[in-house]
Amino acid sequence: MSGTLYGLGIGPGDPDLITLKALRLLRACPVVAYPAPESGDSLARAIVATHLPGGQTEIVIRMPLSAARFPAQEVYDRATRDLGAHLEASRDVAVLCLGDPFLYGSFMYLFARLAGRHKTVVVPGVSSVLAAAAALGMPLAARNDTLAVIPASLPDDAIEARLAVVEAAAIIKIGRHCARIRDLLTRAGLAQDARYAEHVGMADERLLPLDRVDARAAPYFSLILVHRRGAAQR
Amino acid sequence: MSGTLYGLGIGPGDPDLITLKALRLLRACPVVAYPAPESGDSLARAIVATHLPGGQTEIVIRMPLSAARFPAQEVYDRATRDLGAHLEASRDVAVLCLGDPFLYGSFMYLFARLAGRHKTVVVPGVSSVLAAAAALGMPLAARNDTLAVIPASLPDDAIEARLAVVEAAAIIKIGRHCARIRDLLTRAGLAQDARYAEHVGMADERLLPLDRVDARAAPYFSLILVHRRGAAQR
Repeated sequence: MSGTLYGLGIGPGDPDLITLKALRLLRACPVVAYPAPESGDSLARAIVATHLPGGQTEIVIRMPLSAARFPAQEVYDRATRDLGAHLEASRDVAVLCLGDPFLYGSFMYLFARLAGRHKTVVVPGVSSVLAAAAALGMPLAARNDTLAVIPASLPDDAIEARLAVVEAAAIIKIGRHCARIRDLLTRAGLAQDARYAEHVGMADERLLPLDRVDARAAPYFSLILVHRRGAAQR
Repeated sequence: MSGTLYGLGIGPGDPDLITLKALRLLRACPVVAYPAPESGDSLARAIVATHLPGGQTEIVIRMPLSAARFPAQEVYDRATRDLGAHLEASRDVAVLCLGDPFLYGSFMYLFARLAGRHKTVVVPGVSSVLAAAAALGMPLAARNDTLAVIPASLPDDAIEARLAVVEAAAIIKIGRHCARIRDLLTRAGLAQDARYAEHVGMADERLLPLDRVDARAAPYFSLILVHRRGAAQR
């Protein structure tokens, strides 16, 4: 009997934004795995730290910052072997996923490798996009609106083509692209009511109108929300 | 001292997919309001029924099916008066929202009327789009993918223009549009790996490849997920 692989969406950062289902499974699994940088602490583990009962086997999946130094495929292949060994020994494994496992989460690479061989259950989580809208008091999409979630790393023309056909957009993973995205939104006439959020739900959360953001300091975990009707639904 | 208005995302249907934060506020508020059809039970209330402590004042916001019979604005105006009276009497009010309050939720019309006058807190929830992806085992968006959430009620050319510029899409509120959307996806070359979900997380959840769906029977709460890479991320 193989163990079950659980991909647990733990939400955007506030430990209270985990679901009852993810919390129950998190506490019940004998093995808990989570991503972390090459050195230093895991943000995912920090978010659930107060929920952990203690006594679980923990597997840290260290992700190199530079793909050139250590291909990510090798990281996932190694994690697949480590997690697979526990599953084959009938131990359930919970993998922590910031936000939602299937929305820009690294869990999907483990899912691709393990779901065909082991029973796998994915528990959806609260996305940082929705948490940002809630924190900013900015309704995202109503009635016939189309919402696009667009990575900031795309080139200008790709982002402009996407913005041109939707009413609402979340441009995510802003980081070093901030000044370029702001210029692009200004040209598209969408900058005035755009709102910026970084580290939503965490202790260092910041919420700002886009024109008050220091573009040089935007972290990777930041996003910009825009809507053709403006920021408010009044 | 005014009470606080809470917009609580209660998730897509499974009572276990509510967040700890929404659950805590739901139990603590003396007044709970929720939408319901003109006659019959409220789906939102049914989802949280096992979580309610009893003894709370409940306000049913009855939504007419036909806007012609009773303009929705009047419904929201009346609810605003009812909820506003409790808030002015210093009673906190929790409004239940299926999925997330700011993603196609009717809460935003109450938010628009009340947030300027009363302290308002929005608690994000798990969207049915993410719950469907999890249930279907279908990763939604990775790396540089753009995800669009598109209402099925839009005309064909509008949906085609949106699908043309994205890698992944969730077409929501399928209902009577099912056959038309399936034809449209077939023409776009996206039907083969499209997946269909209805009533995700509820007792009558159904998950199917699109080509096995009886288009005449699709309910309003159904959606179709498509991805240019196909259904699997393997």
